[in-house]
Amino acid sequence: MRQSKLFSKTSKTSESGAKSVNHDLLARAGFVDQLMAGVYSYLPLGQRVLDKVSNIVRQEMDEVGGQEISLPALHPKENWETTGRWDSMDVLFKIISQSKSEYALGPTHEEVIVPLAKKFIFSYRDLPASLYQIQVKFRDELRAKAGLLRGREFLMKDLYSFHASHQDLKDYYEKMKTAYLKIFSRCGLKAIITEASGGSFTKEYSHEFQVETPNGEDTIFYCPCSFAQNKEIAKHKAGDKCPDCGKKIQELKTIEVGNIFDLGTKFSNDFKLTFTDDKGKEDLVAIGCYGIGISRLMGAIVEVRHDKDGIIWPEEVAPFDYHLLSLTDKGEEVYDDLVKAGVSVLWDDREDVSAGEKMADSDLIGIPNRLVISKKTGDKIELKKRDEEDVKLISIKDVLSDK
Amino acid sequence: MRQSKLFSKTSKTSESGAKSVNHDLLARAGFVDQLMAGVYSYLPLGQRVLDKVSNIVRQEMDEVGGQEISLPALHPKENWETTGRWDSMDVLFKIISQSKSEYALGPTHEEVIVPLAKKFIFSYRDLPASLYQIQVKFRDELRAKAGLLRGREFLMKDLYSFHASHQDLKDYYEKMKTAYLKIFSRCGLKAIITEASGGSFTKEYSHEFQVETPNGEDTIFYCPCSFAQNKEIAKHKAGDKCPDCGKKIQELKTIEVGNIFDLGTKFSNDFKLTFTDDKGKEDLVAIGCYGIGISRLMGAIVEVRHDKDGIIWPEEVAPFDYHLLSLTDKGEEVYDDLVKAGVSVLWDDREDVSAGEKMADSDLIGIPNRLVISKKTGDKIELKKRDEEDVKLISIKDVLSDK
Repeated sequence: MRQSKLFSKTSKTSESGAKSVNHDLLARAGFVDQLMAGVYSYLPLGQRVLDKVSNIVRQEMDEVGGQEISLPALHPKENWETTGRWDSMDVLFKIISQSKSEYALGPTHEEVIVPLAKKFIFSYRDLPASLYQIQVKFRDELRAKAGLLRGREFLMKDLYSFHASHQDLKDYYEKMKTAYLKIFSRCGLKAIITEASGGSFTKEYSHEFQVETPNGEDTIFYCPCSFAQNKEIAKHKAGDKCPDCGKKIQELKTIEVGNIFDLGTKFSNDFKLTFTDDKGKEDLVAIGCYGIGISRLMGAIVEVRHDKDGIIWPEEVAPFDYHLLSLTDKGEEVYDDLVKAGVSVLWDDREDVSAGEKMADSDLIGIPNRLVISKKTGDKIELKKRDEEDVKLISIKDVLSDK
Repeated sequence: MRQSKLFSKTSKTSESGAKSVNHDLLARAGFVDQLMAGVYSYLPLGQRVLDKVSNIVRQEMDEVGGQEISLPALHPKENWETTGRWDSMDVLFKIISQSKSEYALGPTHEEVIVPLAKKFIFSYRDLPASLYQIQVKFRDELRAKAGLLRGREFLMKDLYSFHASHQDLKDYYEKMKTAYLKIFSRCGLKAIITEASGGSFTKEYSHEFQVETPNGEDTIFYCPCSFAQNKEIAKHKAGDKCPDCGKKIQELKTIEVGNIFDLGTKFSNDFKLTFTDDKGKEDLVAIGCYGIGISRLMGAIVEVRHDKDGIIWPEEVAPFDYHLLSLTDKGEEVYDDLVKAGVSVLWDDREDVSAGEKMADSDLIGIPNRLVISKKTGDKIELKKRDEEDVKLISIKDVLSDK
């Protein structure tokens, strides 16, 4: 892609209201634009990152047997009354239509998927089932804040699993932990599995996936041996002995990037989702729920992976693999060769921009590999990794063989 | 994919309220489920079709220089007041938040993309620009009907183009006509470019892409020479001489699958979206708007392409390329070989279902190529195309080489 044609511009000044690192950098680098508090447009660069993150999530959900579907955002009021959440969920957007019907705007989808499952699940032979969607969610947050981390409208993957026994649910829940760690690792993040409140549905803990960062809004108590609890439920504090290994517990500031819930039979009881077991006995289906905020994850990556100059995208989610800066007229030829060979490259072909500005913009945008052609480089190209200091001279053949 | 694991079941009886062919067949074959009038869930089979249609649209929009973005569904009231449509658009869903802010739920996105463009378009050097999204739209229809054809919530591609001159817009508009015909052709439909009202924005005609079908809700007057007008604006009627070629004009029942608008400077005037031309003069940007309802298109394909037994998917949008029905125990081996070779195949491995039911379900679901393994077929496999009567015996090698 030619940068002169790219719909976005970098900016040296912060967008008004940008109080978080992710909002500030993503807006200044031209990935997102804030329409209003907690509501963002994704520009072409941002769309590319969202698509890459979504595809990683999709691959790993398919890998654990998930089937992709799409559920509506408009939900009938009755379904939310059935679960008691029409009145109890404070972030629920409510709409009245011209014909005086009342709808909820989906902040989560138990109220739709459980009645749907009732149409297809009858017998133990129909279980287990695992369904997910990647879809926009709505929450009427009083204070939307922290850029992409807490929005009124955001992209989310939610998977729901249905099981014939609680043991089968528990086994699947453990598989999902592994899948989640893989997703976050592919996104360049080291996630900590953290015990958290199960909410009103269950006496058991739920699990959050927390990522350490100085500006995190969550606090967890953590020991590298694998102990981790959210402050909200923690019975230990920093400095205490870890109950598992005896070492000192640390306090960490973190961002939650995913959570998984054992919902038990709460929702299957509400909607009478039952199945007949292999002995002909009727029983309630056990349900698990597994969420990842895709746009939130994009924000979290920026919070964790940046320096004073800009974003440092991990390879797998970067909008492009290479950023080509040509300070001579040899650029077009190299760009054409790269494109022809199928290399994912953004070419800074802007004519009215200085070499210094191009370098600064490249650091701000944060593509993992920067290629510079200048008078000094001769027949070679200068390669610098965004997260390394060293530069080296390579040939275009090296780029092509690296692809 | 093993059909025994697929989340969906075929049904011999129609879903309640299914009054259109597309709703009836898509629900009975397990592609969609109606949550309420005009609001559908897409099951795994339906999701696959939506993804394939979306990717065709995406490829053709990229081909004409479109850049993909995502705009929010929640819009600030002020933007809709600026264009005068807060009060004048009767299908606008309106929401009031906890903090008493008023939002529109986007039925179209001029009110968001034009203010966004104002942040990036300043000079003739920033033009033309072409931006699109594939995203859920909301319309508060009093009477949602005709299955996927007229919904309250639906998936849509909308592209907006920005130009320095009206002539440049007109040239792009013609390119878009060609791109649209290609999209519909890849979806197995022959679309007729039809003159229609330009709405309140322009004195010129807009253009609709209409597809002939007996149950169509639109009426057009048409001559194969290329003359076509929507009844709403037509000055001719059936039997009149075509003004272009003199032959007799025919009346056709049709479904609209896309439309394109020359919006002129209506919205750039509302939001003061101007640019500086190459002589330093300031002028309003000319805007075009180009829509395709992705879910509507899925419904239109079914309306046009079905017989008494079920759906007849065109190759490019079918949920799978092959439907394998094994009536002996040789199925698994063949299925494994096909999967290993990367063939897109649904295997009907259900144990409690008769051969006759499997055949009927295969016709209902409508995958283009049916493979049957039975005692009669020996070492070979019987291939039948969904839209042909003939069957032929082939070997698994033939399937693999056809891939």
